[in-house]
Amino acid sequence: MKKDLGPVNTLYPSLTTIVGTVVDGRPNFLAIAHVGIMNHSQPQYISIGVNKSHYSNKGIREHKQFSVNIPGENLMAETDYVGIVTGKNTDKSKVFELYKGELEYAPLIAGCPVAMECRLHQVVDFPTHEVFVGEVVKTWADEAVLTGKGKVDPAKVRPLLFDMETLSYYGIGPVLGGCWNVGKKLKKG
Amino acid sequence: MKKDLGPVNTLYPSLTTIVGTVVDGRPNFLAIAHVGIMNHSQPQYISIGVNKSHYSNKGIREHKQFSVNIPGENLMAETDYVGIVTGKNTDKSKVFELYKGELEYAPLIAGCPVAMECRLHQVVDFPTHEVFVGEVVKTWADEAVLTGKGKVDPAKVRPLLFDMETLSYYGIGPVLGGCWNVGKKLKKG
Repeated sequence: MKKDLGPVNTLYPSLTTIVGTVVDGRPNFLAIAHVGIMNHSQPQYISIGVNKSHYSNKGIREHKQFSVNIPGENLMAETDYVGIVTGKNTDKSKVFELYKGELEYAPLIAGCPVAMECRLHQVVDFPTHEVFVGEVVKTWADEAVLTGKGKVDPAKVRPLLFDMETLSYYGIGPVLGGCWNVGKKLKKG
Repeated sequence: MKKDLGPVNTLYPSLTTIVGTVVDGRPNFLAIAHVGIMNHSQPQYISIGVNKSHYSNKGIREHKQFSVNIPGENLMAETDYVGIVTGKNTDKSKVFELYKGELEYAPLIAGCPVAMECRLHQVVDFPTHEVFVGEVVKTWADEAVLTGKGKVDPAKVRPLLFDMETLSYYGIGPVLGGCWNVGKKLKKG
């Protein structure tokens, strides 16, 4: 029996990130899981959907740069914290140890095993949210989370998955199968 | 030590969906994990990033409707299959049992525990991909995957998470903590 839930977004769980910006001259961080993958070839474009009420938006609009950091399970409390207090009245610049990449206004979090520096490509406007589309300029990762082929290994990153329906952070589970592979057996002929 | 990976999209794992369309008068399905959450309030807008070479795009552009179905682990092979064969030369209309919702051109997959019917809101154009932003018109779920409060429970849906770096499908793991809660202990005063 299918139940009609009305028009509900059920695109969960989604990947939890920490977006880094510089606002009013100070690094600021905001937990964002309403992310998106836009163009998958060079250049790579990703998106973050940010409520217009947030403080970070001002920094992104001003400097046209931001970082997207991917925290592991060990940073769950800090990640949640930067999602529940606002930079408008709280200095979040000291929550994390930072490092410098290529861009001036995309502060990177040392404790996050993976991070992307983005240059603002466009803003897609919605009633309550601004979707910032960023071009990935540079990606950083801890050697410890890479596979032998130099790819980012989710099993080592241990990302936080966000579910807004039950308001829970999930970890990732086991590998279930290979993409573009497990379906081959259904091919005919 | 942070390693420079170049400009790589590492926004993974992402949620695997099956997008339903009607193309040339026939239901068609395509696995898409390059999804996004755009506006999170009513109306709800979500996005799917689809390579311009795909067959589904034609149906979305013609009818301005599509469905976003969320398969569970039990549909991994079928999901992968509809991502590796194209509707241009393969009839995928019989792969799944379908049901009817509100929209005419958003075929829904009975075996997927959750599904959203979307009306096309806008197309954001990128070099190789079209990002179709849909307004969620109606959401359907199996009673069996709902919490006592009528919310979709990921632990019951058992969604497939897609990782393009290692080309693996992951399951979800355990609940690690409560959103907007576990960070409260870091608040001062």
